[in-house]
Amino acid sequence: MDFLQLDSSAAEPLYRQIYTRFRSAIAEGTLQPGDRIPAARALALELGLARGTVESAYALLTAEGYVEARGQAGTVVTPALARHAPVAPTPRPASAHNNLGEAASSTKPFQMGIPALDAFPRKVWARLAARAVRATQPADMIYPPWAGLPELRIAIAAYLQLSRGIDCTPSQIFITNGYRNSMELITRALLKPGDGVWVEDPGYPPTSDLLREAGMQVAPVQVDAEGLMVSHGVASAPGAKAAIVTPAHQSPLCVSLSLPRRLALLDWAAQAGAWIVEDDYDGEYRYVSRPLPALQSLDRDGRVLYSGTFSKVLFPAIRLAYLVVPPAQVERFEHICRTFATGGPALMQGVVADFMNEGHFARHIQRMRRLYAERRELTADGLSSVLGKHMQVEPQPGGMHLVLCMKGYHTDRALAARMREKGMAALALSERGVLPHIPSALLLAFTNIESQARAQELGKRILKIMA
Amino acid sequence: MDFLQLDSSAAEPLYRQIYTRFRSAIAEGTLQPGDRIPAARALALELGLARGTVESAYALLTAEGYVEARGQAGTVVTPALARHAPVAPTPRPASAHNNLGEAASSTKPFQMGIPALDAFPRKVWARLAARAVRATQPADMIYPPWAGLPELRIAIAAYLQLSRGIDCTPSQIFITNGYRNSMELITRALLKPGDGVWVEDPGYPPTSDLLREAGMQVAPVQVDAEGLMVSHGVASAPGAKAAIVTPAHQSPLCVSLSLPRRLALLDWAAQAGAWIVEDDYDGEYRYVSRPLPALQSLDRDGRVLYSGTFSKVLFPAIRLAYLVVPPAQVERFEHICRTFATGGPALMQGVVADFMNEGHFARHIQRMRRLYAERRELTADGLSSVLGKHMQVEPQPGGMHLVLCMKGYHTDRALAARMREKGMAALALSERGVLPHIPSALLLAFTNIESQARAQELGKRILKIMA
Repeated sequence: MDFLQLDSSAAEPLYRQIYTRFRSAIAEGTLQPGDRIPAARALALELGLARGTVESAYALLTAEGYVEARGQAGTVVTPALARHAPVAPTPRPASAHNNLGEAASSTKPFQMGIPALDAFPRKVWARLAARAVRATQPADMIYPPWAGLPELRIAIAAYLQLSRGIDCTPSQIFITNGYRNSMELITRALLKPGDGVWVEDPGYPPTSDLLREAGMQVAPVQVDAEGLMVSHGVASAPGAKAAIVTPAHQSPLCVSLSLPRRLALLDWAAQAGAWIVEDDYDGEYRYVSRPLPALQSLDRDGRVLYSGTFSKVLFPAIRLAYLVVPPAQVERFEHICRTFATGGPALMQGVVADFMNEGHFARHIQRMRRLYAERRELTADGLSSVLGKHMQVEPQPGGMHLVLCMKGYHTDRALAARMREKGMAALALSERGVLPHIPSALLLAFTNIESQARAQELGKRILKIMA
Repeated sequence: MDFLQLDSSAAEPLYRQIYTRFRSAIAEGTLQPGDRIPAARALALELGLARGTVESAYALLTAEGYVEARGQAGTVVTPALARHAPVAPTPRPASAHNNLGEAASSTKPFQMGIPALDAFPRKVWARLAARAVRATQPADMIYPPWAGLPELRIAIAAYLQLSRGIDCTPSQIFITNGYRNSMELITRALLKPGDGVWVEDPGYPPTSDLLREAGMQVAPVQVDAEGLMVSHGVASAPGAKAAIVTPAHQSPLCVSLSLPRRLALLDWAAQAGAWIVEDDYDGEYRYVSRPLPALQSLDRDGRVLYSGTFSKVLFPAIRLAYLVVPPAQVERFEHICRTFATGGPALMQGVVADFMNEGHFARHIQRMRRLYAERRELTADGLSSVLGKHMQVEPQPGGMHLVLCMKGYHTDRALAARMREKGMAALALSERGVLPHIPSALLLAFTNIESQARAQELGKRILKIMA
């Protein structure tokens, strides 16, 4: 460990010096992928440092994927690094986006829910953010209003009117820390432990997990080609107090909720005094016609809560989403927002408002819609040319992923699991629901597949796994 | 309304054009404080626009305090603007930090919980933030780890060890969106509806509000000169499952929890299988001796959850706080953080980590401790010289505010209410609790009082109110 010459008089804390020196040693090849590194206890002894200091450095190296714990075999330089381009010697530590102890990874092929980050206008964003942070005055540093910055709420209201046919005032809009925070607010404001809640099946398991953790009774409701089967919900869980739906492109089947079903759902909610949560996470991304107006725009009884997010149309790390609540519920949500002090940092909210007001937002969504239409087609073509015998590759009218129904004897779960072992981010449709008769299908996002050749290459990797 | 020449071909949305033109007209004096502005409906008619467009502009003008709704009398240019310096013609709209419909205000004299924002190193902060946002790569834009950025968790662990005597690993640290989000996580992770929870009385009412909204039974426990009276809690709510305490400087009395009480509280928690939440929001701000080590550092049974925040040591708009949880609870909190997707934007977390790692954080806290010691003394002296006959002005060893016990017949509530009418942010001690025998006292923050002359001037305003 000759490279570990620490400087105890330096301003940089010792754990960071250790961390930096290890990174450099790995980047320069002094330490090779697979090499074992000393146990924290031993190294601490050798360097005359507290064990915690070395452990902190190792935790960071692990979190960023430079080293891997191997149980009895100790800790080694991550073997997979050998397959990657040389590691930059001093990347920003803040770029480590993984749980402590989990190996780092960039976006994996087919990973769901991640927009095309390479196409995000990072320079414009950086310019707006730098400008906003430099313009910060003491008055901007106090508690932001719990419901969100007025400027952002106004910009969202204007956008929703134009793009999603939603007629609402800014006071109906509540800024949250993401979709799950929006869901949590709804459970706090309108539901109580023990209440039944319809969820789509197949659906989005994190929604069910959250509802269960919040004390709700989750009632899975079947989905067919027209979306949520309202009649099934009425039959199987008639006393439910809420329904969580994805009307634009059902998650994960990508079908749209038909107009008769929309009306049936609204009728049910009005009669049952139940709430409808419209999760419109990717409503913008429709490729065969104009995006459908939101279900909320049909609501005459004040039963629909519209949930939007910036994770898919900007990027997930921003942690900003919003709820549109019926006028009669505004006061209740204001109370809940104040009590639980939701809402993100003022700076991020201000930057998003600027991004919207200066036209970058609308432009970016338009560009992404074109790009995704292209990537959806080239991914479908590329995969179809290789896997057509085994799977039905038929793109849906909207969404950010493909649903590949399996033709043969292969089960989606086994295949998806083996694909994950090989570094791909496949999901199995049958894992997304609990009711019987869910078809075997792979869920593969196309948002980060740049070319048909890349899709074919990935298709061949899948074929090899199936062989 | 000649100044309202809109440009329908401009990129700027029409509501923003209206908003900007009104601001300029007010700034330039075309519209004077007290002037009535047209009703939204009438103006929309006149301009040939949708009423909602004008309403959005008015909402923003109201939110930023430019105009005020006066019920039947219509909407007027805020009369109070006459007393202020001329309004800058084009300030950043994102600086409006108020609920839609509430008039804007800067920090009021004596406002609690607001650090000395004028002394925050804004330039350093802006430099770090601008650097971080420019260095953002696609890998930084995916979902940040739910528990927080490793770099920030590591920096906090190192800081807590040094400053608060807390021995923990980074994996015990969970980044949240603020103190109330920390509290919410705790209720989700460790408590269930109906559980009893001790709160200090007098205490911090938002904590009780949150607990009640989360379904807990709030049990107020008396506070004396040694802090929370553990024996009173045991007698009045023996079955409680948690106690929320502010051991460093009790909120709002500023007394420290004595060592015997600390040990008694820990004993109770161990025997009752209850949790102690140590809210250490201002533990750094002690002026008569070194900050006391955290209660958590005495915990041998894994019963203490330590709650820290950046609202007071950096600034509130950042919306970042953290929890230190006992090792045995790490897995449970990881599950809850994943389920509810807590944790703020990656960018803000990264900037705070950089701010800490580059030494600015420790330096800032040291400077603030000196500044607050000074402001505490000059505020106490200034108020004492004017109000000494009516109140006992005796600074506490720590905290960010003074507790002025009233000597005469005046009740704190009536006086505080009248001070608020006059634009000061006084709080009455008796409003901070529900148990009998809470003394009449004013709670006045000194963090933003710059000079003894200013304190005297404010003291005279209070004297006039009392006369």
